[in-house]
Amino acid sequence: MRARTGNPTRMIRVRVPGRTARYPVRVERGLLARAGLLLRAMGTHRTAVLVTDATVGRLYGALVASALSRGGYRVRVYNVPDGERAKSFPVFRRLCEAWARDGITRDAVVVALGGGVVSDLAGFAAASFYRGLDWAVLPTTLLAQADAAIGGKVAIDLETGKNLVGAYHHPLAVFADPDALATLPARAYRAGFAEIVKMGVVARPSILDAVARLARRGGLGDPSSAAPLVLAAAAEKANLVGKDERDQGVRRHLNFGHTVGHALETAYGYRRFLHGEAVSVGMVAALRLSVLEAGLDPVDAVEVETLLRSVGLPTSVREVPDRPFWDALGRDKKRGRAKLRVVLCPAIGKAKVFEMSSLTTLRRVVRSLTS
Amino acid sequence: MRARTGNPTRMIRVRVPGRTARYPVRVERGLLARAGLLLRAMGTHRTAVLVTDATVGRLYGALVASALSRGGYRVRVYNVPDGERAKSFPVFRRLCEAWARDGITRDAVVVALGGGVVSDLAGFAAASFYRGLDWAVLPTTLLAQADAAIGGKVAIDLETGKNLVGAYHHPLAVFADPDALATLPARAYRAGFAEIVKMGVVARPSILDAVARLARRGGLGDPSSAAPLVLAAAAEKANLVGKDERDQGVRRHLNFGHTVGHALETAYGYRRFLHGEAVSVGMVAALRLSVLEAGLDPVDAVEVETLLRSVGLPTSVREVPDRPFWDALGRDKKRGRAKLRVVLCPAIGKAKVFEMSSLTTLRRVVRSLTS
Repeated sequence: MRARTGNPTRMIRVRVPGRTARYPVRVERGLLARAGLLLRAMGTHRTAVLVTDATVGRLYGALVASALSRGGYRVRVYNVPDGERAKSFPVFRRLCEAWARDGITRDAVVVALGGGVVSDLAGFAAASFYRGLDWAVLPTTLLAQADAAIGGKVAIDLETGKNLVGAYHHPLAVFADPDALATLPARAYRAGFAEIVKMGVVARPSILDAVARLARRGGLGDPSSAAPLVLAAAAEKANLVGKDERDQGVRRHLNFGHTVGHALETAYGYRRFLHGEAVSVGMVAALRLSVLEAGLDPVDAVEVETLLRSVGLPTSVREVPDRPFWDALGRDKKRGRAKLRVVLCPAIGKAKVFEMSSLTTLRRVVRSLTS
Repeated sequence: MRARTGNPTRMIRVRVPGRTARYPVRVERGLLARAGLLLRAMGTHRTAVLVTDATVGRLYGALVASALSRGGYRVRVYNVPDGERAKSFPVFRRLCEAWARDGITRDAVVVALGGGVVSDLAGFAAASFYRGLDWAVLPTTLLAQADAAIGGKVAIDLETGKNLVGAYHHPLAVFADPDALATLPARAYRAGFAEIVKMGVVARPSILDAVARLARRGGLGDPSSAAPLVLAAAAEKANLVGKDERDQGVRRHLNFGHTVGHALETAYGYRRFLHGEAVSVGMVAALRLSVLEAGLDPVDAVEVETLLRSVGLPTSVREVPDRPFWDALGRDKKRGRAKLRVVLCPAIGKAKVFEMSSLTTLRRVVRSLTS
């Protein structure tokens, strides 16, 4: 699988080595309306278990339900609450109990329609119910299409932390329909660019050029023009997942910007930032740290910061709530490791995992985020 | 892996084809006290997360905790309630939240000490926490040593049904210590013979001879004499799991006696029968059905019934609560299949899955259980 930005190919494949997982990621307009027939070609399931949230359900639930009916499925729809609170034990349990009461069993295919929250929740329910049902993802946010829907990682949150209970459960297919992005709030849409830019920084520089061109052309507001970017980011994600399903090697490069990003989200109680926004600020920190500790050219770091601003993402914060931020950052240490691990970028398109023995430089970098 | 009843070998291996899973099952006196050193040889984990229930914890908790300390582990003990209610969402959630609060992470190995309930619960928590921690099983009941602890199937119950939410998560090792059986209540101990006899019926007739010899010698009360039987049953289970991890072929033969057995458990609200007792009555039904529908020699069927009685297991019931029993049995049908699937035994040592188009014969057989 190689870089194909701008290439007419609209389908990539995720191949997980040593496992049977091997599935298509399609990025194509109008996929939501064709999901039933496409899915039908992939299996003999009788029932489609459509899981979506209130907002996406209102917009696309009926469209996808009727598409699934046309595929010959008996369709059952399950609505879950909007937002991160859906990734909780109570919602997970209610979903499983409802499936059991409705007689859902192994002949069903779960269809997750929504952003990363819906696919994380529905995917973990699919992974666990009857010890594993087949499932498919129809991501409707830019972030989910370019990143979250790919790779088989599904989870719910504990009170103590995000994504702590979950599974690796690859879907049968990912159908990303750029038309769905048209209804995405502008802020959520912009936040999706954070993971796309990240992919350019750690693995595929051509993505950065493509984002820059799009920004110059004023094309950021047009979701269909994001399709080639979605495809390029998804292809790179698929590539890294194929090399390292279980996060023991190169897949960890995808955490670039996430150490500081997660700590910011936690410090602000997940209210101030969208995930992509926190990752954007976190990437600025990671870039500056890379200049200081990994030899990244400062000009390159500044260019990426400028790119983030050009797509409307934050690159600084008014203040960092000291205690909760450093507590969140320090949690890794408490968990048995002596050193904090961060992903740094020694040159654009490259990444590596660093163990930091001292926090002095990081403190300096974090202070620079507020100026 | 072949039959080795009476063979001095005390270790078998589970090999799951096409996966990395390949782990030892040891059956040996004194294993509980050596668990720490044995486990240490299998990995570099820092922390041992010991999960046990109130009763087993009181008997063997301190012994195993100090064995784990001797293995160089930092030991954390988590007690869960006795009995099936531990396999519930609230207990599962509490366990995960406690692990998260205590900073348990991927460098930990979960150690399940107890019967099938403890290993199902702790195994599913291990499968899901951080998307999968390593784990080991120290089964302390005859049923768990001979059957439940082997094969990687872990689960919790829903209100609507047993084992509906779970995973396939193979342990690093199974250490079955026959000494632990000495404290098992007599009734629970006898119930364990049901799955051992079942293994003889569907796969390895020599197990039936060994059980009969033990009963004639009056050796049933002596747990250490059960060790060769545990080993033989465990070896056969490992063999079937190795051929069919995901219950799509021969592993389903292990459901012999379980269709009627489960329906009896459900009909009586899981209060009247221990699992092994219900399976014993269910096997009588399956044997009689096999005579009528699959050509099993009636003499063989009667011999197995006699064997079950000789180990103190029930082979009849005073009454079958009609409505709940047939409702429970019919659930399979409602779930989309037109026919009820049962495992029958055309000859001792063989099994196959039958689809029954009519329930007439089964009704007759079930009536015969009350006479």
